[in-house]
Amino acid sequence: MTFGPSSWTPVPGAFIQKVGKDVHAYKNEIGPKAVVVMVGLPARGKSYIVKKLKRYISWLGFKTKVFNVGNRRRTCAAETEVKTGCKQNHSSDFFNPNNEDARSLRDQLAMDTLNEVISWLNDGGKVGILDATNSTKERRQRIIDRCSRERDINVLFVESICTDPEVLARNMELKLSGPDYRNQQSESALRDFQARVANYEKAYETIEDDDDEDIQYCKIINVGKKVIAHNIQTFLAGQCVFYLMNMNLAERQIWLTRHGESLDNQIGRIGGDAALSPAGDEYAEALSTFMAEQQRNFRCSKTNTPPPLTVWTSMLRRAVETAEHFNPHEFDIKHMKFLNEIYAGICEGMTYEEIQEAYPEDYKARSANKFYYRYPGMGGESYCDVIQRLCPVIVELERTRNSVLIVTHRALMRSLLAYLMDIPLRQMTKLDIPLNTLYCIEPKPYGNVLTKYQYSHDTKTFSQIESNL
Amino acid sequence: MTFGPSSWTPVPGAFIQKVGKDVHAYKNEIGPKAVVVMVGLPARGKSYIVKKLKRYISWLGFKTKVFNVGNRRRTCAAETEVKTGCKQNHSSDFFNPNNEDARSLRDQLAMDTLNEVISWLNDGGKVGILDATNSTKERRQRIIDRCSRERDINVLFVESICTDPEVLARNMELKLSGPDYRNQQSESALRDFQARVANYEKAYETIEDDDDEDIQYCKIINVGKKVIAHNIQTFLAGQCVFYLMNMNLAERQIWLTRHGESLDNQIGRIGGDAALSPAGDEYAEALSTFMAEQQRNFRCSKTNTPPPLTVWTSMLRRAVETAEHFNPHEFDIKHMKFLNEIYAGICEGMTYEEIQEAYPEDYKARSANKFYYRYPGMGGESYCDVIQRLCPVIVELERTRNSVLIVTHRALMRSLLAYLMDIPLRQMTKLDIPLNTLYCIEPKPYGNVLTKYQYSHDTKTFSQIESNL
Repeated sequence: MTFGPSSWTPVPGAFIQKVGKDVHAYKNEIGPKAVVVMVGLPARGKSYIVKKLKRYISWLGFKTKVFNVGNRRRTCAAETEVKTGCKQNHSSDFFNPNNEDARSLRDQLAMDTLNEVISWLNDGGKVGILDATNSTKERRQRIIDRCSRERDINVLFVESICTDPEVLARNMELKLSGPDYRNQQSESALRDFQARVANYEKAYETIEDDDDEDIQYCKIINVGKKVIAHNIQTFLAGQCVFYLMNMNLAERQIWLTRHGESLDNQIGRIGGDAALSPAGDEYAEALSTFMAEQQRNFRCSKTNTPPPLTVWTSMLRRAVETAEHFNPHEFDIKHMKFLNEIYAGICEGMTYEEIQEAYPEDYKARSANKFYYRYPGMGGESYCDVIQRLCPVIVELERTRNSVLIVTHRALMRSLLAYLMDIPLRQMTKLDIPLNTLYCIEPKPYGNVLTKYQYSHDTKTFSQIESNL
Repeated sequence: MTFGPSSWTPVPGAFIQKVGKDVHAYKNEIGPKAVVVMVGLPARGKSYIVKKLKRYISWLGFKTKVFNVGNRRRTCAAETEVKTGCKQNHSSDFFNPNNEDARSLRDQLAMDTLNEVISWLNDGGKVGILDATNSTKERRQRIIDRCSRERDINVLFVESICTDPEVLARNMELKLSGPDYRNQQSESALRDFQARVANYEKAYETIEDDDDEDIQYCKIINVGKKVIAHNIQTFLAGQCVFYLMNMNLAERQIWLTRHGESLDNQIGRIGGDAALSPAGDEYAEALSTFMAEQQRNFRCSKTNTPPPLTVWTSMLRRAVETAEHFNPHEFDIKHMKFLNEIYAGICEGMTYEEIQEAYPEDYKARSANKFYYRYPGMGGESYCDVIQRLCPVIVELERTRNSVLIVTHRALMRSLLAYLMDIPLRQMTKLDIPLNTLYCIEPKPYGNVLTKYQYSHDTKTFSQIESNL
């Protein structure tokens, strides 16, 4: 291993890691692996939780994959149809616990999927999420038994329980647009789905402490309103539970933008703590007007009023100044060090050309692996370090029910968008995040939806542009 | 507000804060205040939880105070005795729910204490912890009603439930050495205490969701083995629940030391990334031998074997090298950026004399308020910033059941000891933490116990020294 300011080491800044080891390799090779086993009746928001959890854990740097038993069932049925020419009937009767044949087929499908999870884990994966109902004690015991035959695979059960009739009705509705009911008459589809749920309910057994004293589980009741955590011992399980505890379904908007143009931007210098240029200040002023308008026009479907808008900026001058036109009596404005730009160590204040000339090896190393590359010099950061310090911001973003505008910097925007829009870490370092662009993200039941706006200095207005990343 | 490298601003690096505001002032003046209301039968570990929680929340920078109803009862009784000359009898019958007079006195004591909490909060406090049994719905409703008359005071109930007979027996034993039973024959004391608990049990009602749909509570069952969290909405409540979820009672040791002497230490330079001096390397070698011996000799009372020892160091060269003599096959060695020394910005690599000469105003500002002072220059940190980045390390330290040796730096040692030994933040920046000193902290039911060892380069041995801070 090498030390010193201009030597490039792929040692990242994450929590708990071996020096000299790539953090992803470390995170994914060393220490126990996990199977997150979902439990719950259909339409209880399991897939919503699975998607969010997968997005968060991958973003933390753990290799994560979702294995969906329903998808496997549908694929199997399609294959059997092709082979035998017989249409496979997966209407509600297939889910009747007294239908012995179907039950043993369903058991087989579940265990096959679990075996697939385990091979994937043994093949370098870190967290496998088993998305299925797993609604009986017997099934769960089989999962525990199977995993205990492996070395160092922990099981975390995540049971989703939903008793709120409003949420249930919405989930049912969403289900009918899903793969099992696509192209069916909605009334007969709803009847069949309700019969399927009734069949599951017959056999459904919630997780109980005396199932197994050492069982590691968490129950999410009504999308995090109540959370029960039992025997949570591993680091990863603790992170999952804390994350799920903080989620909410409030309708709101999350806005992101880089600061207005700074004096350093004009000459291509990175880092530093420059003030806004006149053009940057113009953007700042236009932003406050546009956001106030957007805020007034947004409506929660329940209350028909907008949630309050909070403004978060970094503590760097160019970001603080970008929020200076917001009326502090109308908006809560907060500044966080956690949102500061990636710290470029000895490269602070240099242009990319200057870096290439002064530290050609660093420049090459950075191009080869931008995610792990840590800027040389005391305190220098990698994208990986940035993600570590962003964790509390993400949890806070999930916890709050307010709309939020985040005024921050290029590397930070990339890291935040990677989380919000589920972009792979190695890809996100290349996202093009120009100045004068405003990103709006709205959480929806099926995922986050992105809208982009661009500010024109000519027309002095924001206009919606194509929403790609 | 001022920007720029050599201007000192009391703006700290904590999460969510107003620019230009002292973070403590911000943390404590803005946003809702909280009353943490304990719930639970006697001897269920309430005071243990209270002590830990108070220690953690104060360390996070929130003004926190514990209000104990039992202490108020004893003080009142003593005062009445002095006034009336009558001995006040607080034996078990005082706690009989059918003893109307005593009950109304107990109610009065509880509500008086709550009023005291509220005045203290209105007087600048942030988190008041009400340490009492609060074991009936009626009592809790009165607390909710009283707090809802105040603006912006949230209530978090923390119920401690204990069903583990071993823990219960130990708690009972501890209780008998407490203030109510001191100087009593142990047998009659135990009988009286058991009768008191039985009286509480008669009237005890656990918190239920239908008490109040919006009630914010968490139940800690068997010291965190199971945790139930309901309607946790505020940032502070989320932090408390996450912290309590991670605690455990495993017997183990937490060791802390600065790195061995570095080449920069020899010439009084702060910061930097120097290697160990020959004397530093000697310390490193002696440390590994001493720790291996300590580790072998430590015994958990239950298993009669030592827990595994994990070594955590910062990612700075002098700390990494200090752990290099540990056998990696015997000990798990991890390096964390979070444990790096406070980053001194433009003062990195300077001596204190040089700083005083080059930046006399900074030097003065730092002396005046060492806790909030943030070193000038990009990335420069304050003690307050250090505490923010240490949070995940503390949670990890609480979660693990292993013994841990932390090899880190002066400012980090101060911050860690402030948490572990409950030292006020303003005081901790002045702790004397010399090189060649090893701190051992053992968690005990009544608090953490500190032992200190000093290494002598003359005798080449560690010897125990006076354990003051």
